[in-house]
Amino acid sequence: MITPPDSSPPPLRSSGEQSVGDPDRPVAGLVVDYVLGLADDALVSAQRMGWWISRAPQLEEDVALANIGLDQLGQARALLSYAGRLEGAGRTEDDLAYLRDEREFRNVWLVERAQTDFGVAMARLLLVAAWQSELYAALASSSDETLAAVGAKAVKEVAYHLDHATSWVVRLGDGTDVSHERMQAALDAEWPYLDELFRPVEGSVVDPASLRAGVLDRVTPVVAEATLVVPEVTPARGGGRQGLHTEEMGYLLAEMQHLHRSHPGVSW
Amino acid sequence: MITPPDSSPPPLRSSGEQSVGDPDRPVAGLVVDYVLGLADDALVSAQRMGWWISRAPQLEEDVALANIGLDQLGQARALLSYAGRLEGAGRTEDDLAYLRDEREFRNVWLVERAQTDFGVAMARLLLVAAWQSELYAALASSSDETLAAVGAKAVKEVAYHLDHATSWVVRLGDGTDVSHERMQAALDAEWPYLDELFRPVEGSVVDPASLRAGVLDRVTPVVAEATLVVPEVTPARGGGRQGLHTEEMGYLLAEMQHLHRSHPGVSW
Repeated sequence: MITPPDSSPPPLRSSGEQSVGDPDRPVAGLVVDYVLGLADDALVSAQRMGWWISRAPQLEEDVALANIGLDQLGQARALLSYAGRLEGAGRTEDDLAYLRDEREFRNVWLVERAQTDFGVAMARLLLVAAWQSELYAALASSSDETLAAVGAKAVKEVAYHLDHATSWVVRLGDGTDVSHERMQAALDAEWPYLDELFRPVEGSVVDPASLRAGVLDRVTPVVAEATLVVPEVTPARGGGRQGLHTEEMGYLLAEMQHLHRSHPGVSW
Repeated sequence: MITPPDSSPPPLRSSGEQSVGDPDRPVAGLVVDYVLGLADDALVSAQRMGWWISRAPQLEEDVALANIGLDQLGQARALLSYAGRLEGAGRTEDDLAYLRDEREFRNVWLVERAQTDFGVAMARLLLVAAWQSELYAALASSSDETLAAVGAKAVKEVAYHLDHATSWVVRLGDGTDVSHERMQAALDAEWPYLDELFRPVEGSVVDPASLRAGVLDRVTPVVAEATLVVPEVTPARGGGRQGLHTEEMGYLLAEMQHLHRSHPGVSW
């Protein structure tokens, strides 16, 4: 009646062994890292969105944010499974989600920081969903059949996320003096992390830089309608695509991975 | 562009003013309390289920538990809205979820305690879903049209919850020695809270006692298949239907209500 224990996952590669930028690294390995980056962006976004469940300001919003998180988790699962197949070492989506260490996660800094302010959550969702809208549309017309299928499905989901974030950013930005001030502060806090999305990634199927104009075309009219200003800020250092993360990533992984790691190799 | 602030909700009634058992209390008020009890059971279950999002042992389980929580939240919203209409004082689902104090919540103790052990979460879901299966089926054939509609929709949802809990309880119970022992301990921990579900409630549309046999008929074969034993335990005191709660309820409400109460009366 019990599901037999999974075979143990293969040993995790050390982070130095196959780093991005290694000239001897096979191309397939670079594509894996690219796909893992997109998967981790979605996975970590879903984790952060999950924090809001039971804490949103309205029951309807609680449901909306939960559904957005579930969409992101679905995207993450599809991409992780594909990365596992590309890698060819037998790692499943669960192995990749729960058994990698922090240095092996390739998500950008934008998605990993805690977001306990609702304005920050909506500012971030605006940026993430605008970027994913461009990204998934480009993947949908790429020659990689799996990524094209993932992109075609996800592009409809993130269109809704973008609408949702837009309506909150406009409502809060063009609201009371207090909500306006807080929304501008939230935008100022998130904007430095936008640049990392457009930096070159080896093995990329869609050139990150090619998405910048489209993302700004989506975001800047929303900022204007919300009577906010586009922040003039220095981009954050970033480094998530190379496995370098902020301090908050460790806490997120501890929470996400604890239960699975407490029972390694079994699916009870 | 901003949604205008809601009109302030009416003052909350003091808990002594219209207590269950007050012989002068109008019957409509008793039905409100009955409906609120069922709503709060679903709402608080959803909050506790939400804790698992980002913490489940598998990505697939994360998705499943999130969807179960969303079903419960949907049931809670429908019941809260109806309670607000029955009450006739203009309170919305959000007023009822976020602006009541602990003594006004009428959920049973079974659903409110923290569940940070996965076995406990599945034992509890087994009991809750078995009870809700009987409850919603009975409501579906009641003469109250709204409750009949809520019941008819919810009965399909909780059938899935019951299947899900059943498969985990059997897998863990009839698993390794360790998982068996932990699953029995989880069942022992939850079982004392089952009795409260069947105690009389004034204004009840479905007599709680009438559900006992059906619930046990659903649960005991699962316990047997899982090679577990039905615990022989003294029922917990309970008192949730009268607004008496365990210490953990306060923490749950603090988390759930904090953001809404920080911005009273506005929907920004």
